[in-house]
Amino acid sequence: MKRLLSMAMMVLAVGAAPKPMGTGDVLRASKPSDWRAIAPDNLLVMTLPAGRVVIELAPQFAPLHAANIRMLAREHWFDGTTINRVQENYVTQWGDATEKKPLGSGAKTLTPEFDRAAAGMPFTPLPGTSGYGREGFSDSWPTVEKNGRAWLAHCYPMVGAGRNDTADSGPGSELYAVIGQAPRHLDRNATLIGRVVQGMEHLTSLPRGTGDGLGMYETAAERVPIAALRLATELPEAERPHLEVLRTDTPAWAAYVDARAHRSRDGWFVADAGFVDLCNIRAPIRETKR
Amino acid sequence: MKRLLSMAMMVLAVGAAPKPMGTGDVLRASKPSDWRAIAPDNLLVMTLPAGRVVIELAPQFAPLHAANIRMLAREHWFDGTTINRVQENYVTQWGDATEKKPLGSGAKTLTPEFDRAAAGMPFTPLPGTSGYGREGFSDSWPTVEKNGRAWLAHCYPMVGAGRNDTADSGPGSELYAVIGQAPRHLDRNATLIGRVVQGMEHLTSLPRGTGDGLGMYETAAERVPIAALRLATELPEAERPHLEVLRTDTPAWAAYVDARAHRSRDGWFVADAGFVDLCNIRAPIRETKR
Repeated sequence: MKRLLSMAMMVLAVGAAPKPMGTGDVLRASKPSDWRAIAPDNLLVMTLPAGRVVIELAPQFAPLHAANIRMLAREHWFDGTTINRVQENYVTQWGDATEKKPLGSGAKTLTPEFDRAAAGMPFTPLPGTSGYGREGFSDSWPTVEKNGRAWLAHCYPMVGAGRNDTADSGPGSELYAVIGQAPRHLDRNATLIGRVVQGMEHLTSLPRGTGDGLGMYETAAERVPIAALRLATELPEAERPHLEVLRTDTPAWAAYVDARAHRSRDGWFVADAGFVDLCNIRAPIRETKR
Repeated sequence: MKRLLSMAMMVLAVGAAPKPMGTGDVLRASKPSDWRAIAPDNLLVMTLPAGRVVIELAPQFAPLHAANIRMLAREHWFDGTTINRVQENYVTQWGDATEKKPLGSGAKTLTPEFDRAAAGMPFTPLPGTSGYGREGFSDSWPTVEKNGRAWLAHCYPMVGAGRNDTADSGPGSELYAVIGQAPRHLDRNATLIGRVVQGMEHLTSLPRGTGDGLGMYETAAERVPIAALRLATELPEAERPHLEVLRTDTPAWAAYVDARAHRSRDGWFVADAGFVDLCNIRAPIRETKR
């Protein structure tokens, strides 16, 4: 006992290491420079009866899709289209239910953007290993790197472009959001174009569809109308979302990942997993004053 | 070219290896003995306005909780209680909103059953590694094994027993279901008592609550009434669910896991992950004729 006391006093004398932080501590201690503003040119605002769904585009991974979706949004193409599919623990999908609405100036189809060169991409790997590849975050996006290629992971609440049987059959006019457990088998099988950054609950709390075993809404009455889908740059200043995401190339992010893997620092928890998997962690997003 | 032809003819001559099966092929080829019936003594049927939610208990992992929940169900304790919390991408939780309803013959609290001895437990590990431990399936349950202990994983759609700040503060009278990305940090922090085997959509498509940042329903009007929660053994034969789950100690299961890791066998898919993580695979469940 005496020895233990002596050791404790030594620690006090030389200065104890800082107490490891919990997730809340990390965010409270973060500096303004730990966050990046989401550019309005990368923000889509979709208006549903229940409220607004805000989507951030990922042009670093899907530049062709981002450009085409911006064009469709500028031409108000999505206005009057509908949510046509809600499949339990899988996806909510929207677009033109008839699949016949002309695409205006938009491309009829696009080269798939299932992955990109890993070279030149910012990347902060997570500790630990995964069977899917080397996992981590690139500019706050959940990312996998393998054999010189990199791709976005199908984590909740990522948004992708639907396609038909051929790989190049989607122009970004039909979009889906991941609403449940990350369907990682979709990685590199569809182009992820972004993620929902606000209003996800308006996509997840919808009734599930019953058609084709795929959650399709079988009647027009079930479909949820999209009043408008706009680029934030087109909205009046007062209606624009002002959002920031925690940067993933900072010590604050490293501390956040560490805190997510050691939740017993957050009270209530009694056991630590000592690990956190890619889709069980997300770069925090916050609203800023205007 | 000639050499390739010769090799192909050799394969034909000696008999080609069977074509690897997709997920649908595996299930179609399964034999009756590849499935186990879910015992009615382990089945709970919860009646909500939208329909029935059927839960399978896991007494191999939580025998005390299973016994107490059976007793509460037999005494119709849950009847008239409510769903009180729906937190986006996390949990739907139900029980007595007042937290004052007497527990009848039920225990006031139970020893936590966060994990159990791994010895003597049936276990079929998944290929590959995970940072959480050695992962696999035990009698069709998603399970982690580490340092001689084993525990159920918080995958969608597992059901757990809520607790307050002390580890032993939950008697199984407040239950939650995982509705989103697996919150694996809850593993070994709460007792998982089973899983939803039917009607999960009635728990996931509810409006999200707005209270305390925890998805609590803030008014009585928001709460969803539970008309009844019954053990299947107490239901008339015509109302009992008849369900089977794919056994995970069979070659059929190994083929199913392999097919889930190689989805390009299923058409549409162009890329294989070559891997599937624990919570991205579930033992299939089917309804049987009565």
